[in-house]
Amino acid sequence: MSANSAFGTVWGLGLGPGDPELVTIKAAAILKRAAVIAYPAPEDGDSFARTIAAPHLPGGQKEIAIRMNLGDGAFPKDDIYDHAATAILAESKAGREVAVLCEGDPFFYGSFQYLYGRLSGRCPVRIVPGVSSLMACADAAGMPLTARNDVLSVIPAPLPEAEIARRLEDCEAAAIMKLGRHLGKVRRVLQKMDLVDRTRYVERATLGSEKVMALAEMHGESAPYFSMLLVHKRAEAWGNRSMAATSRGEVS
Amino acid sequence: MSANSAFGTVWGLGLGPGDPELVTIKAAAILKRAAVIAYPAPEDGDSFARTIAAPHLPGGQKEIAIRMNLGDGAFPKDDIYDHAATAILAESKAGREVAVLCEGDPFFYGSFQYLYGRLSGRCPVRIVPGVSSLMACADAAGMPLTARNDVLSVIPAPLPEAEIARRLEDCEAAAIMKLGRHLGKVRRVLQKMDLVDRTRYVERATLGSEKVMALAEMHGESAPYFSMLLVHKRAEAWGNRSMAATSRGEVS
Repeated sequence: MSANSAFGTVWGLGLGPGDPELVTIKAAAILKRAAVIAYPAPEDGDSFARTIAAPHLPGGQKEIAIRMNLGDGAFPKDDIYDHAATAILAESKAGREVAVLCEGDPFFYGSFQYLYGRLSGRCPVRIVPGVSSLMACADAAGMPLTARNDVLSVIPAPLPEAEIARRLEDCEAAAIMKLGRHLGKVRRVLQKMDLVDRTRYVERATLGSEKVMALAEMHGESAPYFSMLLVHKRAEAWGNRSMAATSRGEVS
Repeated sequence: MSANSAFGTVWGLGLGPGDPELVTIKAAAILKRAAVIAYPAPEDGDSFARTIAAPHLPGGQKEIAIRMNLGDGAFPKDDIYDHAATAILAESKAGREVAVLCEGDPFFYGSFQYLYGRLSGRCPVRIVPGVSSLMACADAAGMPLTARNDVLSVIPAPLPEAEIARRLEDCEAAAIMKLGRHLGKVRRVLQKMDLVDRTRYVERATLGSEKVMALAEMHGESAPYFSMLLVHKRAEAWGNRSMAATSRGEVS
């Protein structure tokens, strides 16, 4: 790092699925010392990433809120990342460490990759992996995601119905992410494939408001952004224990 | 928990990919207080999971080493888990908390699921999700695992050649895990599919001995168990920056 001694490191900081206790020791140490934090935030309202980080912030940091339309299925415009990268680069050049707060892991469907592409080669950028919602949802459901030589498919729900069906065809387990307004469509696909009874719905895993239920019990056409379906095509993976018991991840 | 007041909780404790700083705050707190730790270990030698936990252990815990053949592609015999579950249950019944140490996340190809199946319903069992090697390898490679509506396939290398090829067919990105002695076979599949130049090899992510390289530069027929291939089928995901720069996750 001698060549960069004037620069502050920019950290892509994975903060995990929501429970502030699931922040890693490494991420917590960086939150404690970073002069600047930057985070995605809705156009109006609180940033979920900042909420996860909050208990670990000593206070007094400079804050860069990257406001964007986090609405269903929208991808933010390039200029939002251009502006944010410019602001972050200025802090790095001034010798200040910048922690970019990321829900889950920075590189697993994370928007940090768009900042990474703009900042790499211009300042030191490092990644701290975080607990992903993919694992947290399976753990919350009390149901192993994958065993032995299972193939897992991770499928975004915004894909067209026929594509979701095709991608579900050849795997032992699947996680269907980014449900939002696509829940109804995905349920229809699973009904046609006779997989509804093999599917669990998990919402806000690791948070106080966490919900786990069989998809068959979940009605409506939409779901929050922070929700996921877990499909286990092998019957033995589903097991015989009651949903209620496994959904608490704890059995008496 | 009132009904279980005599029982100690059994924790499936995700410890992350290897760097002890990537242990979560929650897992570290449980390691600090648990009266008993249990962990998978080779028939002869040190347990990797215990090595990750070591800096967080105050000392003086009772230890249950679950010795098994961790050799290439072998799945431990049922009686190993039967015996371990019996020993862990006895500790729980005696009111002692038991931390079962798990590399990565407990339910992502983790052997903890076999203990979970044996213990659920007999004592309180809870899961603490951990940072998965899947995310840690992508972060180490400086290369986002998935963007936007990419489908990701996670494929175990022990599968037959034709099956690996078929499962690679319909995804934008893939992680091929459990390489071991299957590296040569997997390379042949990727060569036939013209994907070698789109594949990175990552070994021991987050450890001091971490290696990241293009698969084209990686020779030989086998690799350590703690290694992975990351395949990005979309050209733009590969990017134009040099492997050397991205492999350090840091660019000057």
